[in-house]
Amino acid sequence: MAIRINPFIDATAEPPIPEAMSWLPEAGVTPDRPLLNLAQAVPSYPPAESLREAMSKAILDPVTAFYTPILGLETLRKRFASRLSETYDAPVWESEVAITAGGNHAFCMAVLALAGPGDEILVAEPYYFNHTMWCTMQGITPVALPCEAGDGGLLPDPARAERLITDRTRAILLVTPNNPTGTTYPTEVLEAFLDLTKRRNIALLVDETYQDFLPEGTVPHRLFQDPAWRDHFVHLYSFSKAYSLTGYRVGALAAGPVLMEAIGKIADTITICPSHIGQLAALYGIDHLDAWKGARRDDMMRRVVALDAAFAGTPGGFRLVSRGAFFAYIEHPYPDRGAKDVARALVREQAVFMLPGPIFGDGQERYLRAAFANVDEDGIADLGRRLAEF
Amino acid sequence: MAIRINPFIDATAEPPIPEAMSWLPEAGVTPDRPLLNLAQAVPSYPPAESLREAMSKAILDPVTAFYTPILGLETLRKRFASRLSETYDAPVWESEVAITAGGNHAFCMAVLALAGPGDEILVAEPYYFNHTMWCTMQGITPVALPCEAGDGGLLPDPARAERLITDRTRAILLVTPNNPTGTTYPTEVLEAFLDLTKRRNIALLVDETYQDFLPEGTVPHRLFQDPAWRDHFVHLYSFSKAYSLTGYRVGALAAGPVLMEAIGKIADTITICPSHIGQLAALYGIDHLDAWKGARRDDMMRRVVALDAAFAGTPGGFRLVSRGAFFAYIEHPYPDRGAKDVARALVREQAVFMLPGPIFGDGQERYLRAAFANVDEDGIADLGRRLAEF
Ligand SMILES: Cc1ncc(COP(=O)(O)O)c(C=O)c1O
Ligand SMILES: Cc1ncc(COP(=O)(O)O)c(C=O)c1O
Repeated sequence: MAIRINPFIDATAEPPIPEAMSWLPEAGVTPDRPLLNLAQAVPSYPPAESLREAMSKAILDPVTAFYTPILGLETLRKRFASRLSETYDAPVWESEVAITAGGNHAFCMAVLALAGPGDEILVAEPYYFNHTMWCTMQGITPVALPCEAGDGGLLPDPARAERLITDRTRAILLVTPNNPTGTTYPTEVLEAFLDLTKRRNIALLVDETYQDFLPEGTVPHRLFQDPAWRDHFVHLYSFSKAYSLTGYRVGALAAGPVLMEAIGKIADTITICPSHIGQLAALYGIDHLDAWKGARRDDMMRRVVALDAAFAGTPGGFRLVSRGAFFAYIEHPYPDRGAKDVARALVREQAVFMLPGPIFGDGQERYLRAAFANVDEDGIADLGRRLAEF
Repeated sequence: MAIRINPFIDATAEPPIPEAMSWLPEAGVTPDRPLLNLAQAVPSYPPAESLREAMSKAILDPVTAFYTPILGLETLRKRFASRLSETYDAPVWESEVAITAGGNHAFCMAVLALAGPGDEILVAEPYYFNHTMWCTMQGITPVALPCEAGDGGLLPDPARAERLITDRTRAILLVTPNNPTGTTYPTEVLEAFLDLTKRRNIALLVDETYQDFLPEGTVPHRLFQDPAWRDHFVHLYSFSKAYSLTGYRVGALAAGPVLMEAIGKIADTITICPSHIGQLAALYGIDHLDAWKGARRDDMMRRVVALDAAFAGTPGGFRLVSRGAFFAYIEHPYPDRGAKDVARALVREQAVFMLPGPIFGDGQERYLRAAFANVDEDGIADLGRRLAEF
């Protein structure tokens, strides 16, 4: 007889990507219709050559092979804190940031610090599935905060959130720019959420993995400008996307002292420290790659323009509901057909691979997610044509 | 008012090393008595130059910057599985191993897969404190299985373990070669534990981070030779120590299919994948560094000989109770003095830095841990002289 698995792990659904991947062998690929892979949120470009060259040197130094402090190299914490201060136009100190083994790791630690079994976390829906998976694994109930499609994309409503808060609610989780919808939340919405969490004495987790893809000079929000952020707000960040460092496993979080003390214990226990070379790569990025990163952002913004053009005529009845950063959220034209069915037919008939909405939550049967970080402007124009033909 | 921290995190003690580190400014260092730092279990040598050179090339390749499969690169899983098969003289398949972001991460995932809040895990005491910290964080009670000092070092007793098993017990955790004691468990002891876990239908977690430091040609144990290992045994491993790659964050685990399915979900959620370059370094190590690793092991074994010589005369009444791999466990001669008091006095008066036993569990007031991976043979001889003078 085999051992018993933790029931919270049994209750956690498998990561959904592999099932969708299994459709790929059926893809209707022809010599002039290659696969348009809009499934994975991974940048299509390598990291900067100068970064790779600098890391190639750094890795020869024996020091790079050793553990760093638990919360990251002091130089990197300092530089990341001042980068946050510049970006958000508000003081953030070295002691208020921690470097992590990626954005997911940052999120997992923040949740573990804040909530335990039986607790609840409000999660804006549609959501990034790894977020709800972790809650379920920890015996925490992820309570869906549904976002309706509207003029500004799919935005969460603070009033609706307030009605969902119970005495077991420990935090509200938002992602902006959003995965899967591409919606960017206005600072007013985020500030209303910070007010709510202050009033109800809970935490506000905001995953800003795609923050670097906002238009040049945008201050993403004003949460850091309220000194009380330290008691409620947790900023989650990833170096994976901005610098194309997914395999380096490096992310970060910013939080006040109470949470940071808890993060110190958790980080020591799970990873001891983030990858040393990963941290050096992040530091190199902050110090040297503003222009490079800006060029990638501009490239993504041209893709957004291409998307708007491709969807201007609602090709084949497919409607662009929201877009930004790496993602477009698309409504399909079949009220009586499930999103999975439509997504699979698109793979088979048009070699267009998008993920069905229900992967990201309830009430998403009318939607498909297109991750366009992987596909250039020509590909996006092609997407429009293929949808029109479908 | 600040947010509430998860009570399980509040209940978790701070990592204990920083407190001991705070004694260092008082160290009684003189020009001919430098600090003998026997506190941290980190190899004193850099990774092989050929490994650093190979990684310096690999990191230029853009592919190295991308995510790998969740459980690791297929080539590495395959090579690590065949390495296990060779070492343990038993078949272990690629699907039965996972690559992790270090040995700690492997342990955290295995525990999360097996146990939830309210459950119990038997932990051989003295223990590696990160292990009990993680249990506490997860609301799992770490139940101490005290090991008495005897001829074979400090060994856990399966009969005593059986009496501690309740209907909430999910696993037994052992570390061999042991941190902090340096004791290597004979295969008979481990097999008796596997039998016990089979009979009681629980899991046996064995952390073998220091396995590479056993004498050449040793088969560490015969657990993998029992096909039923897949239903109960979880092997935990780290590339940190054998290849001096602590900053690369790469480890591994081996387990049967039921556990591996759970690990897949957990790994995706916490880290997505281990560091890509870290995995390439581990692969390079397996493929090219047997001789290099053997030389490091031989070096450690010469230090063990030096330790035996240094303690032959019970210098200053300090008695070597057990030693092996990176560690020596030393009984101090003062029945009425706490270990912390003795450890601190040794720092002050002799500039000898060892960790007090109570960091590693209850009932350890008579012990000090010396991590000699950091100190060469001359340093070890010097340790004997300084203890004699104390
Ligand atoms: C919203 C969001 N958060 C976090 C992550 C995790 O990124 P990483 O762990 O690579 O930093 C992703 C990656 O897709 C993401 O989309
Ligand atoms: C017994 C034991 N297990 C696991 C580890 C963790 O090693 P890592 O996470 O670097 O692989 C250590 C490190 O000191 C250890 O002593």
